[in-house]
Amino acid sequence: MNNFTFYSPTEFCFGRGREQEVGQLCVKYGAHRVMIVYGGGSVVRSGLLERVKAALDAASLPYCELGGVRPNPTVPKVYEGLDLARTFKPDFMLAVGGGSVIDTAKTIAAGSYYEGDFWDFFIGKAKVGTCLPVGVVLTIPAAGSEGSGNAVITNEKTLQKLGIRQPMLLRPKFAVMNPELTMTLPEWQTASGISDMMAHIMERYLTNTPDVQIGDRMAEGMLLAIMEEAPKVIANPRDYEARANIMWCGTIAHNDTCSLGRQEDWNSHAMEHEISAEYDVTHGAGLAVIFPAFLQYMAFVHPHKVAQLAMRVLGIQPNLPTDADINNTNTWPIAEQQRVAMAGALKLKSWFHDVLHMPVSFAQLGIPQPNLELLNERLHQNKGAVMPGYFPLDAETTMKIYKLALND
Amino acid sequence: MNNFTFYSPTEFCFGRGREQEVGQLCVKYGAHRVMIVYGGGSVVRSGLLERVKAALDAASLPYCELGGVRPNPTVPKVYEGLDLARTFKPDFMLAVGGGSVIDTAKTIAAGSYYEGDFWDFFIGKAKVGTCLPVGVVLTIPAAGSEGSGNAVITNEKTLQKLGIRQPMLLRPKFAVMNPELTMTLPEWQTASGISDMMAHIMERYLTNTPDVQIGDRMAEGMLLAIMEEAPKVIANPRDYEARANIMWCGTIAHNDTCSLGRQEDWNSHAMEHEISAEYDVTHGAGLAVIFPAFLQYMAFVHPHKVAQLAMRVLGIQPNLPTDADINNTNTWPIAEQQRVAMAGALKLKSWFHDVLHMPVSFAQLGIPQPNLELLNERLHQNKGAVMPGYFPLDAETTMKIYKLALND
Repeated sequence: MNNFTFYSPTEFCFGRGREQEVGQLCVKYGAHRVMIVYGGGSVVRSGLLERVKAALDAASLPYCELGGVRPNPTVPKVYEGLDLARTFKPDFMLAVGGGSVIDTAKTIAAGSYYEGDFWDFFIGKAKVGTCLPVGVVLTIPAAGSEGSGNAVITNEKTLQKLGIRQPMLLRPKFAVMNPELTMTLPEWQTASGISDMMAHIMERYLTNTPDVQIGDRMAEGMLLAIMEEAPKVIANPRDYEARANIMWCGTIAHNDTCSLGRQEDWNSHAMEHEISAEYDVTHGAGLAVIFPAFLQYMAFVHPHKVAQLAMRVLGIQPNLPTDADINNTNTWPIAEQQRVAMAGALKLKSWFHDVLHMPVSFAQLGIPQPNLELLNERLHQNKGAVMPGYFPLDAETTMKIYKLALND
Repeated sequence: MNNFTFYSPTEFCFGRGREQEVGQLCVKYGAHRVMIVYGGGSVVRSGLLERVKAALDAASLPYCELGGVRPNPTVPKVYEGLDLARTFKPDFMLAVGGGSVIDTAKTIAAGSYYEGDFWDFFIGKAKVGTCLPVGVVLTIPAAGSEGSGNAVITNEKTLQKLGIRQPMLLRPKFAVMNPELTMTLPEWQTASGISDMMAHIMERYLTNTPDVQIGDRMAEGMLLAIMEEAPKVIANPRDYEARANIMWCGTIAHNDTCSLGRQEDWNSHAMEHEISAEYDVTHGAGLAVIFPAFLQYMAFVHPHKVAQLAMRVLGIQPNLPTDADINNTNTWPIAEQQRVAMAGALKLKSWFHDVLHMPVSFAQLGIPQPNLELLNERLHQNKGAVMPGYFPLDAETTMKIYKLALND
């Protein structure tokens, strides 16, 4: 286990009706003037935006509004927010929505104190310094962003989808999480969120750092809970209990609970980012396509951790010599590691397809003839010739994985 | 799942050599004058105290010292600390040690701003208000106190062992956790810590709140990791990796990671507190005696959650009708719930004895003829006629559990 610092100071206010507390929470964390950031119509139609405004009014907090943030949020909306901030001068950012809204709010929070172009943070030209504090009312499970110090923004001009990470400053002060708010999400969005949170867990799980049993076992428990609750949510979108379990999983999948003291692997996320930057697909749906392909390739070249996942989470039974240590896949015969790992990868792919009704190939994603050369070229332009991680990926390797994602 | 707030703002600094950062950490959290609280000789002998002082010197922080805190810390040591605080006027408490040291430091932190007798907090006569901030250098895994807002103090005059709980104010600002510092712990103390952290998890696990799968699965993962790492630590006390896994488990066992949105059950802890108040036994050893007895009784009267624990963590195989839902013990035939639960309780008892070399009966604890009537009377004096929880316990019931703990 590597040295680590675990710092998750966000106050998570979870449960029915908790959005009524948002005014008091803003005051508690120092707000005097609030910029509300939100997305499209559902926050308005459901009455949530009005309830949030009423809570701010009750706390005597003036506010301005930045609506219209879209999925895969882009640079112009951040500029719009920064312009608004210059005139309204908020001292607190309140995101009401999912990951795109939160990431936009965080980026405005970081850009407000910066003289130059905020995009400098994303291309490594500047580091995030002072930030406005951010609060969240979450409407989509598995944003993850409500408990993390990360934000991702797409630059449509340069066709880049890039992230910033500042574990201290960009982490929300509070996150109101009412599972009832997620009940009206369409199946597509619910399922995309679930595949995204599972990827968040598995990308932390796939590591070469030895002796990280506690993180492994917690990650496995989280995946088992998700796979138990997901069919209930798909069958009955108004199942509060299943929504609650899924929503909380989405948060702890992304706040480092299961990734401490280990090297992580974010290469499949990076590979998906190229797809959604080019074809504007839902991030979680893109992951349902890429992740099984990624795991199939790993099952072949570096199977041991995939085999452990397959055995402990996906129910694949190993067939081992009687004296083998079942809990240490590293010591299994390599052929058996590969067999179990491949069976697990394919089982996960079927599960994404059959249970979540997610696409699991480019064609099912609505891209029958993807320009893989372009995706692969941009991937390595953004991430370097060799992407380090659980298994180092060069352009030849990532092309093989993209090609595996052509198969239904 | 019930509504909950999860707030764990402690900065955990984990890994080799991290105690060198303690001066900077105190400064970061506002210290100008520090009171160091510690226990007996090992902190001195190992050189840790000198390293901590050197780090404070390097940060130009003046300090005073309160040494000699003993296991099951008592009221007079708190008075001594409060006297010292009146003359030295620290604005930061630094606990260097385990649970007893941390709890003493927290209590002094709470008492420093209170005009009356600090014991008022423990008997419910006053509420904890303003507190000095507390930092921790942890030397014993499974204190739990390094990440919690709780403290327990024994009053030898009134023979009461009571706790206070203030999730916001009493939570340490930071906790330095270097697994190397735990390598010299004797087997007895290591094993007591492990049984204590397992009890912390299981007392949260035993709940009647339905639909708490994510917490259940994480708790099960934590217990599996502990049971995998514990034999390694007992076999080789200098196994850094196993020490690291155990140490981190001890913290998250007690910071609410696996207990959110549920009723908890702390009755076995309360039953053990009476034993260690009367006979001054190590808390974790007392729990190794009480917990299996408690589980055996629950296996009889209210088995479903104990059966789930037995199946998922302790490897007991259920024998069910073919159409039964294996993941929902509530729907199993009651006799099968009881059989699996009892097998699990006995397996855990054997594991405490065979792997941890813990006592599992009063006699093995060195109390061949415990005064059960006295323990039981005090228990209900402190906790009321009926103790609510996973299963409500009156005096007749707790006496049955105490009596089960007479059996080897």
